[in-house]
Amino acid sequence: MEEVNGVPKLMDLLDEPVPGVGTYEDFNTIDWVREKSKDRDRHREITSKSKESTWALVNSVCDAFSGWLLMLLIGLMSGALAGGIDISAHWMTDLKEGVCLNGFWFNHEHCCWTSNETTFQERDKCPQWKSWAELIIGTTEGPFAYIMNYLMYVCWALLFSFLAVTLVRAFAPYACGSGIPEIKTILSGFIIRGYLGKWTLVIKTITLVLAVSSGLSLGKEGPLVHVACCCGNILCHLFTKYRKNEAKRREVLSAAAAVGVSVAFGAPIGGVLFSLEEVSYYFPLKTLWRSFFAALVAAFTLRSINPFGNSRLVLFYVEFHTPWRKTTWLGHYPVLEVLVVTAVTAVVAFPNSYTRTSTSELISELFNDCGLLDSSKLCNYDNANVTKSSNELPDRPAGNDVYTAMWQLSLALVFKMLITVVTFGMKVPSGLFIPSMAVGAIAGRLLGIGMEQLAYYHHDWVIFRGWCSPGADCITPGLYAMVGAAACLGGVTRMTVSLVVIMFELTGGLEYIVPLMAAAMTSKWVADAIGREGIYEAHIRLNGYPFLEAKEEFSHKTLAMDVMRPRRSDPPLSVLTQDGMTVEDVETMITDTTYSGFPVVVSHESQRLVGFVLRRDLTISIDNARQRQDGIVSTSRVFFTEYTPPQPPNSPPPLKLRGIMDLSPFTVTDHTAMDIVVDIFRKLGLRQCLITHNGRLLGIITKKDILKHVAQIANRDPDSILFN
Amino acid sequence: MEEVNGVPKLMDLLDEPVPGVGTYEDFNTIDWVREKSKDRDRHREITSKSKESTWALVNSVCDAFSGWLLMLLIGLMSGALAGGIDISAHWMTDLKEGVCLNGFWFNHEHCCWTSNETTFQERDKCPQWKSWAELIIGTTEGPFAYIMNYLMYVCWALLFSFLAVTLVRAFAPYACGSGIPEIKTILSGFIIRGYLGKWTLVIKTITLVLAVSSGLSLGKEGPLVHVACCCGNILCHLFTKYRKNEAKRREVLSAAAAVGVSVAFGAPIGGVLFSLEEVSYYFPLKTLWRSFFAALVAAFTLRSINPFGNSRLVLFYVEFHTPWRKTTWLGHYPVLEVLVVTAVTAVVAFPNSYTRTSTSELISELFNDCGLLDSSKLCNYDNANVTKSSNELPDRPAGNDVYTAMWQLSLALVFKMLITVVTFGMKVPSGLFIPSMAVGAIAGRLLGIGMEQLAYYHHDWVIFRGWCSPGADCITPGLYAMVGAAACLGGVTRMTVSLVVIMFELTGGLEYIVPLMAAAMTSKWVADAIGREGIYEAHIRLNGYPFLEAKEEFSHKTLAMDVMRPRRSDPPLSVLTQDGMTVEDVETMITDTTYSGFPVVVSHESQRLVGFVLRRDLTISIDNARQRQDGIVSTSRVFFTEYTPPQPPNSPPPLKLRGIMDLSPFTVTDHTAMDIVVDIFRKLGLRQCLITHNGRLLGIITKKDILKHVAQIANRDPDSILFN
Repeated sequence: MEEVNGVPKLMDLLDEPVPGVGTYEDFNTIDWVREKSKDRDRHREITSKSKESTWALVNSVCDAFSGWLLMLLIGLMSGALAGGIDISAHWMTDLKEGVCLNGFWFNHEHCCWTSNETTFQERDKCPQWKSWAELIIGTTEGPFAYIMNYLMYVCWALLFSFLAVTLVRAFAPYACGSGIPEIKTILSGFIIRGYLGKWTLVIKTITLVLAVSSGLSLGKEGPLVHVACCCGNILCHLFTKYRKNEAKRREVLSAAAAVGVSVAFGAPIGGVLFSLEEVSYYFPLKTLWRSFFAALVAAFTLRSINPFGNSRLVLFYVEFHTPWRKTTWLGHYPVLEVLVVTAVTAVVAFPNSYTRTSTSELISELFNDCGLLDSSKLCNYDNANVTKSSNELPDRPAGNDVYTAMWQLSLALVFKMLITVVTFGMKVPSGLFIPSMAVGAIAGRLLGIGMEQLAYYHHDWVIFRGWCSPGADCITPGLYAMVGAAACLGGVTRMTVSLVVIMFELTGGLEYIVPLMAAAMTSKWVADAIGREGIYEAHIRLNGYPFLEAKEEFSHKTLAMDVMRPRRSDPPLSVLTQDGMTVEDVETMITDTTYSGFPVVVSHESQRLVGFVLRRDLTISIDNARQRQDGIVSTSRVFFTEYTPPQPPNSPPPLKLRGIMDLSPFTVTDHTAMDIVVDIFRKLGLRQCLITHNGRLLGIITKKDILKHVAQIANRDPDSILFN
Repeated sequence: MEEVNGVPKLMDLLDEPVPGVGTYEDFNTIDWVREKSKDRDRHREITSKSKESTWALVNSVCDAFSGWLLMLLIGLMSGALAGGIDISAHWMTDLKEGVCLNGFWFNHEHCCWTSNETTFQERDKCPQWKSWAELIIGTTEGPFAYIMNYLMYVCWALLFSFLAVTLVRAFAPYACGSGIPEIKTILSGFIIRGYLGKWTLVIKTITLVLAVSSGLSLGKEGPLVHVACCCGNILCHLFTKYRKNEAKRREVLSAAAAVGVSVAFGAPIGGVLFSLEEVSYYFPLKTLWRSFFAALVAAFTLRSINPFGNSRLVLFYVEFHTPWRKTTWLGHYPVLEVLVVTAVTAVVAFPNSYTRTSTSELISELFNDCGLLDSSKLCNYDNANVTKSSNELPDRPAGNDVYTAMWQLSLALVFKMLITVVTFGMKVPSGLFIPSMAVGAIAGRLLGIGMEQLAYYHHDWVIFRGWCSPGADCITPGLYAMVGAAACLGGVTRMTVSLVVIMFELTGGLEYIVPLMAAAMTSKWVADAIGREGIYEAHIRLNGYPFLEAKEEFSHKTLAMDVMRPRRSDPPLSVLTQDGMTVEDVETMITDTTYSGFPVVVSHESQRLVGFVLRRDLTISIDNARQRQDGIVSTSRVFFTEYTPPQPPNSPPPLKLRGIMDLSPFTVTDHTAMDIVVDIFRKLGLRQCLITHNGRLLGIITKKDILKHVAQIANRDPDSILFN
């Protein structure tokens, strides 16, 4: 009777999955194949039900459209947030210099727009806008006013950065940095709970505004990708399809990354390509189309909210973790570190007009081609020989101001390079995009002006002869700056196609596609010759995340048998047999080992593989059965077979666990070359693969084993691979 | 002694691979995994040798750079060819209307450039250019001259199309059509020998010029992709690395496809994305970077050769194979078909100025926004209220010419739609890109003018109120045409990201990115709702090519055991045993079956899998051994084991075939869901996969089995899958 009683209960157990079975622990890698087949099962169920009732049909239609709806929501939310961040950061940056009398919530530009006393020539000068010195001591003239402004500038900067670092430390440690390396790791299948949660979103949004406003040499564009991914992750909870499936959620996150770049730069196509080239791991065409749609919605939303602020030239950053920084004593005191760096930045930056303005304004000025009416110092050319009416300006000799500007730019270049290296990796939201573009743009502009003057004074030189006659416009320093910015950014991130698309969506310079492409290609070659790793990969490696790089080919001649566990000297592989073990045997095996899964074989003698069971599922199922199922005791037999043989009388009821066994584990033979194995892991997103020889189970290879093997080959410490 | 003698010979045999082993037959699918691991072996060998001598080191460096060098060559060659094609087609198109007295090799535009009597307003009128009527009867006035020109136009068209179809039939049947569906199939791993050969290249280049010049409703852009791929394939023969490896060669061809689009549209980034989104099957990041480089070189080369011809607006086409066309009797007489269609096209097209000009000029005119000085009929607006000096033109009432133009455009729309359907699939090089863009552009322009006039006369309507005040420029008909062209093209090809990038590289309209994206997305949705297949997929299916579509997800709940062979009623799987068969047994098995490969098992009883041998390799090796190896007779034992047991005396020497056996065949269990199996086939590029149950070999699934299964599920005839 007991067995007869047991059967319907077992059936219940199989029909209703035990809660927790099929989920993952924190800091673990998901199994893409399992997640995707779970989703297909769900999809099939909905499709087959849809023929039964109208309600089920409506449900199935909703399910089919939920992906697009989710994209719409992510686009709207990210666009709105980015617009808010843009406006706030702009206002707070100006707050360091002064305040608007018409209303303290106006930034400098808006303040003067509302004023009627502004001319087009001096847009940023109007009586309503008061600098701090003017407000407090009533004058802008003289050294005392200058020091006053200087002091206020530094104080505001310190206040903002202090608030930012404190908030991050207190509420959301995951909010620091750009987040892109972590997102890349998450997209490859790793789980970091809370990294894309609501607290991270709230704190990152606030502290990002503070960090940018403090004037540190960092940008908001990388963090915006993180913000968009948080939006994506949070909105996933509205739809069962995406909430419960880690693989489907990662498809959404890939699209969200595209949205992030789309709002960061106002470059929707560039965003899609960035996600494809740089961030995503699994990017099917369906995700491409959805990213495209989401990026479009986001760009449109942003443009509606903030039509002037983001039209052209707002950029995007990446975190820079150089290994030696990890050992500085300052790194152990993050708040102090941030305050010191902010103080240095503010003190050094204020006197030089090129470092005092926001970096994106600096880049914008450097890209700019000098017109006749331009008031910038960089445009102070000797216009004696130019007719005012002509639209095209020939090359002209530089005036004194240009030489002053070149000196200031050279100092700014050195300062930016040094402070940028120090700034990245601080515990505030930060990115690398704007600073590296600024460095490239300064260098490019300096070279451009140099070439222009050379060409003007020496147009008979061989290199200029033929294409650069006197009085012609043969050198455009702004273009040199643009190409320099692209090259510098390309060297840091190793982007190619997405870089060029972002650059021309940003600048509108579609005609310069050929020099931009050449710059991207050259900088990639040069940088690759020095070191193969881009900034993200270096960061991932330093943090020990389990990321299987798809860019480099594995080229060593090892076979699966060389990498698999157990090694020759190790004890044999821990396996379960399909019908020969008791609950106690299984529990002992779980306690004695730390493996995250066990193969199931027909018998120890034959070693013929039946399936694979995950440790977590096994533990949960046995605990659950002991609590809820009558008569399951330590001596109960465990069965992974389809049919349970009749048990002898008086023996405890059997525990049937076929339901939690993966019936289609991946296997390869021991003679398979490791490069093929690595390829399979990458392309299918496996977590483990079993090794057979002539049909017998021999061992197992996990993602961690592969990463350790790769590290060993590259002469790195295999123990730096921390997670599975 | 015989065995001892046999051993060194066997060793030789194993060391020097038998010629032919590891190659493929025509109309077969390659095994990506095998090709890629062959290349890795080769690479490792070169790397390890490079430490031995300076020459080997140089060799290894050359090998590393050969990929980039090849890209450079492909870019140069394709750019040069495309420039030649552009110039010739332009000249021959003008030849239908007249001839230049300064030299018959000048086209109309160049002829008038060389003349001094041309004004900017009437660039295309100059005394040096004589229409045929003027040349023959001395006048351009009167009905007789008109008929004369008409007749010459039709005669030239017929001559050109006759030459084109005859050349294609006589020398290179593969040169017809656009070639893109076939290239897509080839890139997915199929072999069609000669499709990318030198004859195809030569004939396609010549006939493409003829077909375009004949005025048929087709374009040269799709065929240019084919031309670039031929260049890629031919240049591959210069480098052993690419000549001998089918997988590596396909990487080059992916880049060549990008080059094709790059030169067809002058859109390098669009080309890379087109290759990625639409054509390629296996597109690793390395190929992305190389495509980028090659596309850059090609665009640059083309611009150097033909700086005016291709700057903006030259487009690209695709073949249109509607099923019913296959049954028309005309289709059986390709030459007659071409002549009839050419005659109809020429006769109908000549009287309407919008169909007489080349299609790309038509599109250019439709995209154009009307300035005050424009002489186009489409720009005949009532300018009474417009001040001549202002740069922005408000909406104006249409003049009489605009209404005439609208009538002509409507007729052109109907004609283009009909003739385009008939033209594609004729046995001349042809594409769909320009004609479908033209259809979309005409429809868009008509709608745009309609809206503009509505807005002018009814600016108080709800839909116009608020954003369209009187006297403002609120509707741009040219933008409607551009969006219409993008939408129509998107509907036909289902491109999204690449379409938008091509459109804005083509038109320079970076500001219109949002409407273009919206158009691409909407047309994709609408077209997908009507039928999921794009034009290329439909073509591939109609031709029965073995192409495993990566865009649609396989969603049926079948398991590997339902699809595998043998089925339940079939005879058991033909397997080889690793040590129990004679040469005669093996030969009998080869003769009795048609399978392209056989699994090797330990024994018939255990069915434990050892490896997999391809039929072709087996046949070649046995024939070779019988001819070259002493003592191999029908009763010789065949061994696939690592060690051959000592043979009894007086028995013939054994034949060792372990060298040709694949020691790491892919296996999955019989319980694996078919969606996972399809995924594995797609992502790894498999040709076959073995099925096991509890460690025993049960059956096999080939790519053809999967395609048949997919066809069956979609209610199509499984026997339409012709190739493996």
